[in-house]
Formats: sequence, C-alpha cells, structure tokens
Amino acid sequence: MAARKFQSETIRAFAPATVANVACGFDVFGMALEQPGDEVELTLNNSGEVRICAITGDNGLLPLEVHRNTAGVAITSLLRYLQENTGAEIILHKKLPSGSGMGSSASSAAAALVAANEALGNPLTRKDLIPFAMEAERVACGSAHADNVAPALLGGFVLVRDPAEPDLIEIPLPPDLYCVVVHPRTEIPTREARLALKQHVRLTDAVTQWANTAALIAGFFRQDYQLIARSLKDVVAEPVRSVFIPGFGSVREAALQAGALGCSISGSGPAIFALCKGSRCAENVAIEMQHAFLKAGLNSTPYISALPAPGASIITRTSD
Amino acid sequence: MAARKFQSETIRAFAPATVANVACGFDVFGMALEQPGDEVELTLNNSGEVRICAITGDNGLLPLEVHRNTAGVAITSLLRYLQENTGAEIILHKKLPSGSGMGSSASSAAAALVAANEALGNPLTRKDLIPFAMEAERVACGSAHADNVAPALLGGFVLVRDPAEPDLIEIPLPPDLYCVVVHPRTEIPTREARLALKQHVRLTDAVTQWANTAALIAGFFRQDYQLIARSLKDVVAEPVRSVFIPGFGSVREAALQAGALGCSISGSGPAIFALCKGSRCAENVAIEMQHAFLKAGLNSTPYISALPAPGASIITRTSD
Repeated sequence: MAARKFQSETIRAFAPATVANVACGFDVFGMALEQPGDEVELTLNNSGEVRICAITGDNGLLPLEVHRNTAGVAITSLLRYLQENTGAEIILHKKLPSGSGMGSSASSAAAALVAANEALGNPLTRKDLIPFAMEAERVACGSAHADNVAPALLGGFVLVRDPAEPDLIEIPLPPDLYCVVVHPRTEIPTREARLALKQHVRLTDAVTQWANTAALIAGFFRQDYQLIARSLKDVVAEPVRSVFIPGFGSVREAALQAGALGCSISGSGPAIFALCKGSRCAENVAIEMQHAFLKAGLNSTPYISALPAPGASIITRTSD
Repeated sequence: MAARKFQSETIRAFAPATVANVACGFDVFGMALEQPGDEVELTLNNSGEVRICAITGDNGLLPLEVHRNTAGVAITSLLRYLQENTGAEIILHKKLPSGSGMGSSASSAAAALVAANEALGNPLTRKDLIPFAMEAERVACGSAHADNVAPALLGGFVLVRDPAEPDLIEIPLPPDLYCVVVHPRTEIPTREARLALKQHVRLTDAVTQWANTAALIAGFFRQDYQLIARSLKDVVAEPVRSVFIPGFGSVREAALQAGALGCSISGSGPAIFALCKGSRCAENVAIEMQHAFLKAGLNSTPYISALPAPGASIITRTSD
C-alpha cells in the first residue's frame, strides 16, 4: 500500500466514564456518564508505529508501552485491521481514576479510537470501533467484555446481548433520569473483584436476576420509574463485591433514603452509582452518599450526569 | 356473616392454556394461548362447602377430591379469603392434557376462579385472583409459581418479576406474532422435570440467560422480530429437560427451518412451542414440527394462536 500523506493535524477526542452492570445486569448492561472522561490527542504520521508520547493526570502510574496501554492497544489493532501503514503519536489525558469501576480503561480506548477514526476520515462507524476497544479491555482486565466500551463509544444505555458478535442493543431511557456516581478514595483491582465471584450461582438467584434484567428494560421502555426502582437489584455480584467497599451498606442506604430509585456498585467498584428521578433528587443523593462514605472514613468524589449521556466525541481538530 | 342468598345461576368460564418460560425466561415469563383451554361450570350455594360434581375429558385421571384438584383448591382459598359462608358445585371440563407443559393445572384454577368471582359479583380484579391460583399451583406441582396462572388470568405475555408479592408486568407484543404449540403423545411429570434441573448454574450461562431475557423484552417493545429471534434461547433448562422429549432436536430444527423465530420447550414439556411472524409461517411450522415428531415415533396435536391471546373469560351465565 502506498504511503499515505498526512496533514500535520492533531485531533483531540473525549470519551465518557461508564457504569457497567447497573445492578442486575452483570456483564450485560452499561451506560455512559456525561463526566468525567478521558481525552486523547492524536497525530497520525508515516512511521508505521504507534507511540504514546505522554500521559497526564495518572500520577505516573500508567504504562507508556503501547501494548500495555488500552489506548495504545486499541489504536494498534485498529490500524492493523485497516492495513494502514500508518503510525500515530498520542497524548493521553487521564481524567478518570484507574481501578475506580467507572470504565477508566474503556474511556481511554474509546477516545483514542474515535480520534484515530476521525483522523483517517471516519472509515468506520462508532459501532464498528467496538471490537478494537474490546481487544484493549482484554489487555486491561483479562476479558474482552463490551459493557464499558459499548456505552463509551455509543453513549446512552447499552445491552450487550452477546459479546461474541458483538450483539449490542441501545435502550431508550426515560426523560428525567439522572445518575450519581460517588468514587471513594480506595482502589479495587478489577481482576481481583472478578476473581472474587464464584463460577456458579444458585438457580434461584439466577432466576431473580433475569427477572430483574427483563423488568428493568420494561421499566425503561415504559418510563415507569417505580418499576425501574423495583428492578435495580443485584443478588449475584453485589453481595460478593460489596465487601471490598468500606461503608457500602450505609452509602446504599443513604442513597435510597434520599430518594434514589436504586443504588449498587459501578462496575467492579469501588465507585457506587445511584439512579434518580430529577436533578434535585440526584444532588441530594450525591451529598448523602458522600456523607455516608465520610462516616466510613473515606473521602470521595461525586459526579452527576443527566441520562442518556452522549458517547465519545471530537473536541478539537487543529492544524499545526 | 349472614348467609348470602343465591339465585340458582350457573356460570361457565374458560381459561386458556399457557406457555411458561418462553425459552430464556425460566420461571419468569409466561404467555396465554387462544386455544385450548379448560372450562368450569360453577353454581354457588349455601352449603359452605366446595364440591366437584364431575370432570369430563380427563379419562378419569384427575381427582374429584377438592383439596387435590387445582380448581377445588383455588375456589376454596378464594372463598376462605372473602370469608364467605358459601359453597359451590363445579363441573370441570378438561380440554387440556395434564402433564403437557401447557399449563393444564393453571387453566383449571383460573377458569374456576373467574367463574366464582363472577358469581359473587366480581369483588376482585383478575390480578387479585392470582394468589389463589398460585396456591392451587402449589398443590399441583409443589411450588406456588405464577408464570402459568398470571397469563391464564390476565392474557397476553406476563413477566413475573417477583412471585412473592407477586409483581407482574404485562408486556406488549408485536402485531403479527403467532405461537405454535405441538403436543406429542408422551408425558413428563412436572415434578420430575423440575427435579432434573440442577440447583446451581454456571455464571457464564446465567449471564447469557439474563442478557436474553432483557433482549427479548426489548425486542417485544421495539417490535423487532430479528431481535426476538436472537433472544429466544435457553441455555439453562432446555439442555436438561429436552432429553425427556423424544425427537426434540429435530422438531426444533424443523421449526427453525420452516421460518420460526425461535423454538423451545413449553413449560416443563413435552409440548414444544415456536414463535412465528405471520399466520402462514405458523401453519407451515406446525406441519413441519408434527412431521418431525412423527419421524421420532410420536403422534402429536398442534395448536396455533394469534398473540397476544386474551385471558380467562365468562362463556355463559344461565339461570335454572
């Protein structure tokens, strides 16, 4: 393939944090937040190599090696697929804390992919980009799941019916829904939180869970907030993973007391999310959840998003 | 309470057969068929006792003892709840084969309850009647599940989010959906089919199942027949229970080859259902399924219903 000529252009893209699982939907539900989100600055070149020039906001914790960084893995696999003899230099601005349960690795990968796709003239759709982001997830946490990367790229609420195809179903949300995510200053490695799960579940618990995933979807289509509230329950992952989060029970209780429809672990934690009807309720819930974490000895950072939140987007496009 | 005076009136009511589970929704999904369905003739009296005078169509197999018959148990528990010093005489016309997986016991209970409620001036709604029918299910198969009785009483497609409350969610169906049920001449006792299930399931299978229950509901709301087709899969109960049904694999394959959206076991079997788009497809599917059963050495009876099908109803009201 003839070497492509590049204008010396830098694309800056954003991709949002995401809440995976959403209580009942372990490994199958995910939704985008408005904020926070990682940003990637990307410039294509003819080097044939992907290079991460710098990472900001990570306190020096993330690897600059391309094959160990989700942004690097995602772009490398995208360029390989497109058979582009193309290189890229990227700067990753981490705004999401790693190991928070808010889809940090997915956010970096999604931002990088959207920037690269834009720089190449958008040969692929957002949905087409998902397999490359899943490949990056495999590097980050050992399995190529889509429940963070799909909403990070597409926005909104996504049901991963089948991660193998992948078969992704975008679900409409009612108009007045807000998501509060409170991230306490403590870390759970995703791998360990996954390993804590048993490989078998009781049939009765599984039945409860699939009744609730079905009911939550019905609640969203019906815009029935009470049905949403009744369905936001997790009898499979939450009982096992919540023990890693100091104060989980009291934070959850505080959210529900303050009017949240439901409250559970965001992804594998330690961040905890709550769904609320209305922005005022969301503000109160955020305050009460922070307060409860404080009582448990943890400082925390709250984020409030109106739902559905958009997926990854281009921030700027600058010629040098 | 003063003894109520009764006009010597006989109510005849119908309640439909039902398909429980509907592939992915083990213990949580159920839907009504148009036909077949049991009928109950009921006359109230002052005796304070419920009596089953006769049962037709059962080849003498069903018990006339009130506490061992689902129609008898349902009415007894209804009258006890209403604190009525009332008796009833009923004749049960079995049109549904017992042990077919088509909700035979639920149909009898639902027809009896609707007849009794009508005779009493309809003090309760159809939804209110469900707990009494569930009590009858406990007698018939050892657990008070609602996935047959709820659609038998309410019609349509019902999601049992929680059998304890019960929390029942009526789900809209797309306009051109048909259900084929083919009942082979062989019997599986419900208890044994339930006992064949393991008490634990693999987490990966459970995740597949709750992705599919969520996706099937989304498919129904969206009227997306292809999504419905992709979601009609059961990796939990079908692999275990299908071994009790001679020819299951070839019948299922025949249904799919003839254009069915999906095909699985009706309840605990041996009846097999298929969902189809359009009546012509349903007719072809019924023929091919019967043909495949015949090759496996079994005669069978097919039933085709347009969905959603109505729930239990009053047929006649006659004064003597």
